[in-house]
Amino acid sequence: MTNPLTLDIPAGVPWIDFTREFDAPVEAVFNAHRDPELVRQWLGPRGYEMQIERWDFTSGGGYRYTHRDGDNVYGFHGTFHTVRDNDLAIQTFEFEGAPDEVAIEFMRFVDLGDGRCRLEGRSIGRTVEGRDMMVESGMEKGMAEGYERLDELVAAASATKTSASAAAAQG
Amino acid sequence: MTNPLTLDIPAGVPWIDFTREFDAPVEAVFNAHRDPELVRQWLGPRGYEMQIERWDFTSGGGYRYTHRDGDNVYGFHGTFHTVRDNDLAIQTFEFEGAPDEVAIEFMRFVDLGDGRCRLEGRSIGRTVEGRDMMVESGMEKGMAEGYERLDELVAAASATKTSASAAAAQG
Repeated sequence: MTNPLTLDIPAGVPWIDFTREFDAPVEAVFNAHRDPELVRQWLGPRGYEMQIERWDFTSGGGYRYTHRDGDNVYGFHGTFHTVRDNDLAIQTFEFEGAPDEVAIEFMRFVDLGDGRCRLEGRSIGRTVEGRDMMVESGMEKGMAEGYERLDELVAAASATKTSASAAAAQG
Repeated sequence: MTNPLTLDIPAGVPWIDFTREFDAPVEAVFNAHRDPELVRQWLGPRGYEMQIERWDFTSGGGYRYTHRDGDNVYGFHGTFHTVRDNDLAIQTFEFEGAPDEVAIEFMRFVDLGDGRCRLEGRSIGRTVEGRDMMVESGMEKGMAEGYERLDELVAAASATKTSASAAAAQG
């Protein structure tokens, strides 16, 4: 099961707002952002190979990764200004193909109860034009596919846990 | 000698642009941003005691400092996304009195030749309202006084150097 990605891209300002709900506990979705082995399995569009050079998802930490599509390699890096467990991440974001066009991103992890949660994000570019270029680069498709992969990842983890519990109960 | 601080605060967007020229070489002004012992002597308005807990002015580094005014202590912290010598700094900025209202700041160090330079900055808040609050908090006065103190600092360093050269020439 999957939920829609909602984008709000107002004219004349440099930001993009987005929301995305998950049929998974906030802890699972947060952990899929924190653990580089999990991040590697969902971040970005389908069909890319992700390599993580650094992923230190803590306040004051930072990251660098690449997405490979055949012979094309795209690099991304930034710092994590704030990371609060199951609550908030504030980070910088630079696509190395557009050097020095650094965005700042706010991502709130909202517990909806009943094992569900919502991501509420704002990404702010340096200029309105830069924001528009990011939108035109296919950002929405990449985000939507990434979150679908995240759905699959947390569903698989949950299924493993359920069958492990079932096995434990039988054992 | 001092030069004016020019602010541009357009309606409806979350940023502030500023420029400030210095009658000092770009290396001296950059170094006054890099060396915490120098930063402590000029950053912020007059009459505050600055304490620097951390100042790692490098790409991926970070900082935290406080300004004390009598019994009032104001904390600030952030990360340095990019630092390129005598050229560019991109950093996050959080006033701890307004938690999670993190700004991103771009500062370009422009060599004007003849031992002069210009700082060109853009500070982008999370919202237009947050930007407006920063402006109303007396930010302009703090910046203007800080840069006057920077003028004095680089002039003093230059005078020391000149008298040292004169002494060396005489010796």
